[in-house]
Amino acid sequence: MESMIRVNLGSLSYNIAIGAGHLDRLGELITPLKLGKKILLVSNPEIFNYYGERTRISLEQAGFDVAICTLPAGEEYKTPETLQMIYDAALKYRLERSSTMVALGGGIIGDMTGFAAATWLRGINVVQVPTSLLAMVDASIGGKTGVNHPQGKNLIGAFHQPKLVLIDPDVLQTLPEREFRAGIAEVIKYGVIWDQELFVKLEQSQGLDNIQALDSGLLQEILTRSCQSKADVVSQDEKESGLRAILNYGHTIGHAVESLTGYTVVIHGEAVGIGMVAASQIAVKLGLWDEDSDRRQFAIIEKAGLPTQLPPGLNINDILDSLQTDKKVKAGKVRFVLPTRIGEAIVTDQVTSDIIRQVLESSPVRCLA
Amino acid sequence: MESMIRVNLGSLSYNIAIGAGHLDRLGELITPLKLGKKILLVSNPEIFNYYGERTRISLEQAGFDVAICTLPAGEEYKTPETLQMIYDAALKYRLERSSTMVALGGGIIGDMTGFAAATWLRGINVVQVPTSLLAMVDASIGGKTGVNHPQGKNLIGAFHQPKLVLIDPDVLQTLPEREFRAGIAEVIKYGVIWDQELFVKLEQSQGLDNIQALDSGLLQEILTRSCQSKADVVSQDEKESGLRAILNYGHTIGHAVESLTGYTVVIHGEAVGIGMVAASQIAVKLGLWDEDSDRRQFAIIEKAGLPTQLPPGLNINDILDSLQTDKKVKAGKVRFVLPTRIGEAIVTDQVTSDIIRQVLESSPVRCLA
Repeated sequence: MESMIRVNLGSLSYNIAIGAGHLDRLGELITPLKLGKKILLVSNPEIFNYYGERTRISLEQAGFDVAICTLPAGEEYKTPETLQMIYDAALKYRLERSSTMVALGGGIIGDMTGFAAATWLRGINVVQVPTSLLAMVDASIGGKTGVNHPQGKNLIGAFHQPKLVLIDPDVLQTLPEREFRAGIAEVIKYGVIWDQELFVKLEQSQGLDNIQALDSGLLQEILTRSCQSKADVVSQDEKESGLRAILNYGHTIGHAVESLTGYTVVIHGEAVGIGMVAASQIAVKLGLWDEDSDRRQFAIIEKAGLPTQLPPGLNINDILDSLQTDKKVKAGKVRFVLPTRIGEAIVTDQVTSDIIRQVLESSPVRCLA
Repeated sequence: MESMIRVNLGSLSYNIAIGAGHLDRLGELITPLKLGKKILLVSNPEIFNYYGERTRISLEQAGFDVAICTLPAGEEYKTPETLQMIYDAALKYRLERSSTMVALGGGIIGDMTGFAAATWLRGINVVQVPTSLLAMVDASIGGKTGVNHPQGKNLIGAFHQPKLVLIDPDVLQTLPEREFRAGIAEVIKYGVIWDQELFVKLEQSQGLDNIQALDSGLLQEILTRSCQSKADVVSQDEKESGLRAILNYGHTIGHAVESLTGYTVVIHGEAVGIGMVAASQIAVKLGLWDEDSDRRQFAIIEKAGLPTQLPPGLNINDILDSLQTDKKVKAGKVRFVLPTRIGEAIVTDQVTSDIIRQVLESSPVRCLA
């Protein structure tokens, strides 16, 4: 079983190749792209330990010269300082403009490697090999790259499209369960905002809360539909001047929750889950979508084993405050993505603080503090 | 006297507005661009002291909210660390995606501000207001931005086109004479590689070695023709995949000379002057262009008061070595831009180390060591 999805962006177009065992075909799959001979493979020690040698061998067998750069794992290292480690490796290995960085890892490795590639010699090639579900269906596609500023996630970054995204579902076997569920949050998102059929498949599936609950056919379909959704949206709006903003469904309140809990209590996908529950209720309050759809979405999020309530201790005023520093603020107004029916969403800046407060104070997304 | 030049890059197109007194019209000239209300004005203390308040007033009178960020002056501060100062100001002032950074200064301020704008929130607007001749005719146009790595200039950077380049020749009155001459080196470059008429004008002009020697009409024409040359080239090849490389005429050996002397003994334009003398002789040796053209170029460079010899103490082996680390190296081969006739140049990787050595050992670009 394998699929190939095209992200259409003119001269920046590229493929997403999805298939079990693809990791060993990386070298073969990038050969037609006419990249330079030198590759810097960037990973973290744990992921490299699992998949680094297979990746390296696949590349070397296809004739590439491979150098390795491993970065410390964890969001706290997603900084300009860690970026210097990639730059230093790039210099040491004398990467040229035709050279390529390969990001082997989750969203953090992908974002940092993408940004390093975006900014080394004013832009060299990058190939994304995501190893987490979240990175597979979201972070690795669409060219958003970056590092954190001490006061905000991904504030420093660039758009830099990869030359290829290679997804091997087999590597999800080593992904911690909690991270798997967090990835499912983004899959649910695509079902709500873009792909009604995906939504229904998630609704009908027996279990969503761990990889063993999914048969490989369904997993391949979930990956393919999610990547296709993201590709559709990004192809229409690379730089997020319009449509692409709908991908932030669940992310407005989600980011605030992540940020206020220091990115440790609640991980990204979980925060998005909470954010989707909240956004769905806001949409109900505004009469944009019905309670039945809200309940159906809630049921899927619960089935995926994702949290649906704000973590204890969060202050609602702090959340409202935090929304003001979001990257998506425009002319001081907070923008929300709200579903209108299953498979469709809109962006609006017409959500008042009062409505946000009402939703955050009420069950199910009530503040437990 | 004023001119307006268009850089044609599809949706990234922009104007270069050149005219005495334009500084006071900045606010008016950017108003049609529909930029957001917030502007971060980035400069260094000396330049801000001369021109900061006029710039701020012009922007405020057009209705913009202006915050100021001044950076320490000097190439040694063109680093990722200084960049953080711009990011911190951007965060403090809560710049949004529609906000704009205005770079008021020479090439260093322009490059760093451009890169900060390229990477803050994955790219916000930048307007270039160059105050040195070098920045006016070269650095501010074409979207090359960046900072230095401890081991190489501009190794970290991005392409990020400005929304407007505003050039006010009057501000050159406060430019140190040596920097004025260094800027003239890039003007001469355009004459050699692109604009034969410009070359002839430079040949006929009475003095090129200081701003007082130039009448304002000739200065306006030199600026306009240089910017037009750069705009022509950049419009045809934004990301330097082909033609744009000819703008590196004089820069191959120039960069090596700058780098080996620690960027202090010889400033950029001077290094380009030396590099053009060398490249011209290489072109003669290869039979690409004639000795008469070589002599004519040499005469202009001398008239501009630019050095034509390598600084004392430079070792030729070190220069040959340094060429290997140049950004323009491709598959290990050093690429040279060589003139073929006045107003035309080609890029070639067919220059052997032997030929480079012969030229560097011979007069006029002989090694004085």
